[in-house]
Amino acid sequence: MNWPDYLQQHQPAFIAQLTALLRIPSVSADPALRPEVWRCARWLAQRLTDAGLEAVSVDPAGDFPMLYGEWLHAAGAPTILIYGHFDVQPPGEAQLWRHPPFEPWIEQGRLYGRGASDDKGNLLAPVLAIEAMLRTLGRLPVNVKVLLEGQEEILSPDLPAFIHRHQARLACDLAVSADGWQWSETEADLRTGLRGLCALEVTVTGPRQELHAGSHGGAVANPIQALATLIAGLHDAEGRVRVPGFYRDVRPLTAAERAALRAIPFSAADYLARTGAPALVGEAGFSALERIGARPTLEVNGITGGYRGPGVMTIIPAHASAKITCRLVPDQQPDAIAQAVADALRQRAPAGVRVTVTVLPNAARPYRMALDHPGNVAAARVLRRLYGREPYYTKSGGSIAILALLEQTLGVATVIFGFGLPDENFHAPNEFFRLAQFARAQLAWGQLLEELAVNAR
Amino acid sequence: MNWPDYLQQHQPAFIAQLTALLRIPSVSADPALRPEVWRCARWLAQRLTDAGLEAVSVDPAGDFPMLYGEWLHAAGAPTILIYGHFDVQPPGEAQLWRHPPFEPWIEQGRLYGRGASDDKGNLLAPVLAIEAMLRTLGRLPVNVKVLLEGQEEILSPDLPAFIHRHQARLACDLAVSADGWQWSETEADLRTGLRGLCALEVTVTGPRQELHAGSHGGAVANPIQALATLIAGLHDAEGRVRVPGFYRDVRPLTAAERAALRAIPFSAADYLARTGAPALVGEAGFSALERIGARPTLEVNGITGGYRGPGVMTIIPAHASAKITCRLVPDQQPDAIAQAVADALRQRAPAGVRVTVTVLPNAARPYRMALDHPGNVAAARVLRRLYGREPYYTKSGGSIAILALLEQTLGVATVIFGFGLPDENFHAPNEFFRLAQFARAQLAWGQLLEELAVNAR
Repeated sequence: MNWPDYLQQHQPAFIAQLTALLRIPSVSADPALRPEVWRCARWLAQRLTDAGLEAVSVDPAGDFPMLYGEWLHAAGAPTILIYGHFDVQPPGEAQLWRHPPFEPWIEQGRLYGRGASDDKGNLLAPVLAIEAMLRTLGRLPVNVKVLLEGQEEILSPDLPAFIHRHQARLACDLAVSADGWQWSETEADLRTGLRGLCALEVTVTGPRQELHAGSHGGAVANPIQALATLIAGLHDAEGRVRVPGFYRDVRPLTAAERAALRAIPFSAADYLARTGAPALVGEAGFSALERIGARPTLEVNGITGGYRGPGVMTIIPAHASAKITCRLVPDQQPDAIAQAVADALRQRAPAGVRVTVTVLPNAARPYRMALDHPGNVAAARVLRRLYGREPYYTKSGGSIAILALLEQTLGVATVIFGFGLPDENFHAPNEFFRLAQFARAQLAWGQLLEELAVNAR
Repeated sequence: MNWPDYLQQHQPAFIAQLTALLRIPSVSADPALRPEVWRCARWLAQRLTDAGLEAVSVDPAGDFPMLYGEWLHAAGAPTILIYGHFDVQPPGEAQLWRHPPFEPWIEQGRLYGRGASDDKGNLLAPVLAIEAMLRTLGRLPVNVKVLLEGQEEILSPDLPAFIHRHQARLACDLAVSADGWQWSETEADLRTGLRGLCALEVTVTGPRQELHAGSHGGAVANPIQALATLIAGLHDAEGRVRVPGFYRDVRPLTAAERAALRAIPFSAADYLARTGAPALVGEAGFSALERIGARPTLEVNGITGGYRGPGVMTIIPAHASAKITCRLVPDQQPDAIAQAVADALRQRAPAGVRVTVTVLPNAARPYRMALDHPGNVAAARVLRRLYGREPYYTKSGGSIAILALLEQTLGVATVIFGFGLPDENFHAPNEFFRLAQFARAQLAWGQLLEELAVNAR
């Protein structure tokens, strides 16, 4: 039996295994679910071992598990570091899910559940391709190191120290990330850039405790209103971020970069139908794809303050707070931007309240990779074969902390080689992964390892 | 035994009874606690009967109970309608309470628990005074009708219809409200005005569901940011409400009214120390007491949107919403003001979001009462005797829906005769009632009934 046949025969078993993996609520953002992140790592360690990987170990990185496995018997061939993450986003508003987020279900060829496409389905694909090759051929065409982390969704606070500490073990010629996306079911793409990220929390404090809004309204500042004023002041009327220095280190888009992004088909009507957003809105002077992929943004991800129960409670709250993240592009530095936003918020504190800003440890540097890097050339060849056409060369608005880290620490580039599609609700309710993409991803990984045997560096 | 001695002897029993009353979580704003509001009414019905009141009944007003009792054997004497409310505010943030809000506790002569001062302690006082008089004298100096409601904290949506329906039964010469306050332990005051109120909820909707802030940030409007912009736009830089028509019907303060308010001692330092607010803030051109008592305000009482859990979740939320109440002064109309605010919010909807505004049923008209009304003259005489000095004549920032209602429907004025003090955390965590004020209130009510026998109309 050849390895593609092995994959085809085992799809029912693989789908059952992915379903089992999705049942583990490995939410990295929630301290109460930390044991589940570890349970997930142990489940995957067993799966890596079953696939034929060696030296499988679960090691701590901060409070989180890091999973490693290797197969290093392809003497003379390149060494490829395969990356993925088994932690998932919090499920968010439970009532928006059609079924509970950690009780996976299948509908019309789609497997639903938190983490289905981001990243559990995607990270399983290379493991299954490796198993297929080892079971049918007894060997892999390249040396492989698999590194799966459990803190990607909180921007990998402990990853820098871990990678620094394990430099020798992780040494490789090229990294390939199983966390990534394709353009559609019929169009492939290769991401040549990802945005970075920084995160802050701002709290506005007024009176010592909630006050009766009748007895005190008119005498003291309202922390919600003060926070709203601060947030409203973070953008100008043209959608630009109103923070001194925010755009200072942004490398301007070249004419060629803008042309490449213009070459990508983008239908505003389709986009709005898919997201349900009433209109495209953003920074003046840039297209939507430029604004998503190549311009920095500042978003308020959550806000809370005062009474949120049923009916009316006429209070002036004691405090209100908001969570803010910025997406960054080369050459913005996460620390510097977080500090600039924090400074602006502190300096603009309205009268009658105290403003506290905490820069959160979640951060990622923006990443870019040459379009014609040998790794991209190999990946493009596989995608051309599987999709029957040239991939687009895109820039992603998302962030994967490890990309810039591997470049800095190990001196290697990372090919983005994931098979999620943009409508699959990652970071949203009813996340799913197309089972057809799951199977295609396994095939693609096998072919990529073959390609990289001759073309990785 | 005379009736004041009866009161003194029974204080331990009365404190135990108030404690039992505070154990009932009669939160009118929470539909899940509706049965507790009814249980509270039945508890009080028994207490009224025990006190010697007659024709005690619990009747529905909408989904809420209304409690009535009477003693009408003082032929030729005036008839006094005594008002109070046995529903309480929601407890708010549980972790801010030193003990659970419905497990009352005593510390340094203060009885703590939700509703202690607003209004369970205050409403019990006249009932106990009536009991003392009936047990010792066998009669009351006036005819008394007691009306206690269970929906004051949600602004009495069903009270207008109830009072209209029971006009004949409620007919009286004067109303006295056991919901009210004094200035301090050593200074009394008589309120000559209360603000009205209207309430709204605004919801801003963007995409159909939460979106990944990396993959979409830059392309669509963020509902939290749109809501913040709307809220920030509701006040100008001088603290005035920026809604067309908001101030149109405000009767300007006369020079005499401003002088009366100026005569009240107000220490900004004490106020700030008591509330913990960093500074006095509000509408330009008015003193703090004017802004609280005699100027309308708009407050955001609660806001919510996006991710509020631990850590970071990089989403663009699908929606965000805020609860808003306005306090109103003569001659603002609650409906008209709510509509004006709703219109302003809808007209200012930022691009890329939908704005929905709901005017809530909670409303109260502003109220004022002549300083030299015979009821106030009688009350002032009692307060002068108990406090050894002239009361202040103040305007309250709070709202009690029944005041304007009784004036409109029964044609009677209402004396505000409560004994809570401004630091007792009503509508806030760790609400309490001073046991000394509780005893003083009982004495005051007995004396007031005696005064009103000769001077109520």
